[in-house]
Amino acid sequence: MAEVGSYKLIKKSSQCKARLGQVYTTRGVIDTPVFMPVGTQGTVKGVPNEDLQNSGAQIILANSYHLYLRPGTEIIKKAGGIQKFNSWNRPMLTDSGGFQIFSLNEIRKLTEDGAKFQSHIDGSSHFFSPEKSMQIQKDIGADIIMCFDECTPYPATYKYAKNSMELSLRWAKRCREEFYKDDACKTQSLFGIIQGSTYEDLRKISAQEMTEMNFTGYAIGGVSVGEPKEEKEKVIETVEPYLPENKARYLMGVGMPEDLWEGVSRGIDMFDCVIPTRNGRNGQVFTSMGKINIRNAEFKEDFTSLDPQCNCPTCKGYSKAYLNHLVRAQESLYLGLLSLHNIYFMINLMSKIRKSLENDTFLEAKKEFFENYYSRGTR
Amino acid sequence: MAEVGSYKLIKKSSQCKARLGQVYTTRGVIDTPVFMPVGTQGTVKGVPNEDLQNSGAQIILANSYHLYLRPGTEIIKKAGGIQKFNSWNRPMLTDSGGFQIFSLNEIRKLTEDGAKFQSHIDGSSHFFSPEKSMQIQKDIGADIIMCFDECTPYPATYKYAKNSMELSLRWAKRCREEFYKDDACKTQSLFGIIQGSTYEDLRKISAQEMTEMNFTGYAIGGVSVGEPKEEKEKVIETVEPYLPENKARYLMGVGMPEDLWEGVSRGIDMFDCVIPTRNGRNGQVFTSMGKINIRNAEFKEDFTSLDPQCNCPTCKGYSKAYLNHLVRAQESLYLGLLSLHNIYFMINLMSKIRKSLENDTFLEAKKEFFENYYSRGTR
Repeated sequence: MAEVGSYKLIKKSSQCKARLGQVYTTRGVIDTPVFMPVGTQGTVKGVPNEDLQNSGAQIILANSYHLYLRPGTEIIKKAGGIQKFNSWNRPMLTDSGGFQIFSLNEIRKLTEDGAKFQSHIDGSSHFFSPEKSMQIQKDIGADIIMCFDECTPYPATYKYAKNSMELSLRWAKRCREEFYKDDACKTQSLFGIIQGSTYEDLRKISAQEMTEMNFTGYAIGGVSVGEPKEEKEKVIETVEPYLPENKARYLMGVGMPEDLWEGVSRGIDMFDCVIPTRNGRNGQVFTSMGKINIRNAEFKEDFTSLDPQCNCPTCKGYSKAYLNHLVRAQESLYLGLLSLHNIYFMINLMSKIRKSLENDTFLEAKKEFFENYYSRGTR
Repeated sequence: MAEVGSYKLIKKSSQCKARLGQVYTTRGVIDTPVFMPVGTQGTVKGVPNEDLQNSGAQIILANSYHLYLRPGTEIIKKAGGIQKFNSWNRPMLTDSGGFQIFSLNEIRKLTEDGAKFQSHIDGSSHFFSPEKSMQIQKDIGADIIMCFDECTPYPATYKYAKNSMELSLRWAKRCREEFYKDDACKTQSLFGIIQGSTYEDLRKISAQEMTEMNFTGYAIGGVSVGEPKEEKEKVIETVEPYLPENKARYLMGVGMPEDLWEGVSRGIDMFDCVIPTRNGRNGQVFTSMGKINIRNAEFKEDFTSLDPQCNCPTCKGYSKAYLNHLVRAQESLYLGLLSLHNIYFMINLMSKIRKSLENDTFLEAKKEFFENYYSRGTR
């Protein structure tokens, strides 16, 4: 039996660094490249499990920081793990809490030992160390868990980025030691996270040191934190040559449809982003012919579906005019309907990408996608 | 072919005035007694059509006042009627707008001709007359539409109630004339509304005069406006003897599970209420063992479903502990999940009532229901 979190390379593109593969977990095999919808509080905002499963979502994310604060790790442990708690019976991944503590929490103090922070809910004081994060993520029980690191903000001085990256390396070592202390590794796997901001040499050092520690998979962190698209792509190109071919590569917090194509073409296997649900809540909808905001007056009397190419329940069930009405009338129903559509869009996009890799027609598929996607003249 | 809105009496209870029947529409036959979920703005809050259909909902309500203001009658007419607009392919009923104008709208002026009011959305001025309400409800195109009347507030002086009831009678006549002017009556039916507040003689006069005008069905209005439960039941008992046996009786804006049993036992066929969805949004849940608020701390670690007797997707899919988390974490998903459960509860309750009428065991079924419903000691 394969190790949890292990990657099987199925086929490489002859056109670029894109790769077709699979990630193994005890809850099922994940076909990659894969997009992972985000369920910050253990629930993908506005979307019931059944709809999410029907969309073809293979794995969803949850957030250690949020779950630790509410409902509390103890309750999830008592339930028998996050998938017993939220009834999502496919693979899950938790991030370590680092991103939230360092980017969302303004009241925090960082030491070699860990990070002290205040709850965004009630202001109470808490402390996360690499060891604590591992214990929490073991209690939550997701299939893939992440090292606790500092997500270096952008922009960062070279000195800040270097110190931060080195701290994350030391913490990664502590995470690894804590993780393998017991039998959790039989059902969970731990991924390392490469930092180094936009500095090539730092990214290289981080990649080399992390891979030397031998994690089950590797993530590129510290991206999607405000840097230009080109910087993000350069980071992937810098890091990728140092990543072992036989392990999964995960680009954290990415992204938009264009980012998914660019990431895959540079050798990324896993993506996650809140965009489908966050945009949905703002009325912003992805379609094969580009992005639209369903709130716009032009859709008031448009009785066609959001996207003729989409097979989601929202497109099968409702017209743009009705969705426009729901948004304008502040009917909560639209939150789920638009989020679900956007998730279908991302899942279908990745499915299209995987199919193109099977046929070794990735670049052709990419060209065709963007010819349609930009056909309305909007980006 | 039966007239739209016509009632077929199938069986009378030997134990009380309860009756089993059917209401005919071109979009299908409605088994009565029936509970009609309310979709104020053309959408049952938080619940997708498919879930609503799976719940067994036979007919839903929409609100002329709200739809007229937003999205506007013109758009619904262009869509081909409300059921083309909202994709609900079963029967619908619209109320006339009277209740909203008289109870929700503080800035309004009532004359013999009609009611002038200001939009709650943008403050713009509007005027509804009986004729205008008929035109609007024809454009909206629901299967059953209601006379435009004044919903007499509670409490009302005898004088106020008498004048108000008489105005509603004159308006009912105008509604009838306007309604039958064209072919709308081939696909729609118009119900009259009996007013008279809590005054027996006024209710009798209203019932006699309304039935003399010969409407397709009759509603009892001006209830569920703050009067005690006993007053409401007395109103039904006062009016019922005057209602023809071969026409449907609809108790407007009612109600709670206990009200449904009491209404049916007094000869009512149709009910509507926002309670299932409004309570759902407040975390209040109906179960076979009584009402609970899922937000309560006692459910934090309760990994059982809301109601072991319920077959709804919420009960099949999620635990109380998870729903408690969703409510506390303000995850919008709970809005739909709890609303859907409460709708299933009402629909299943009516189905239980109909079954008991088939078997002529209404009183036994009622007793059994309340033995369970009050078993937690809460009311």
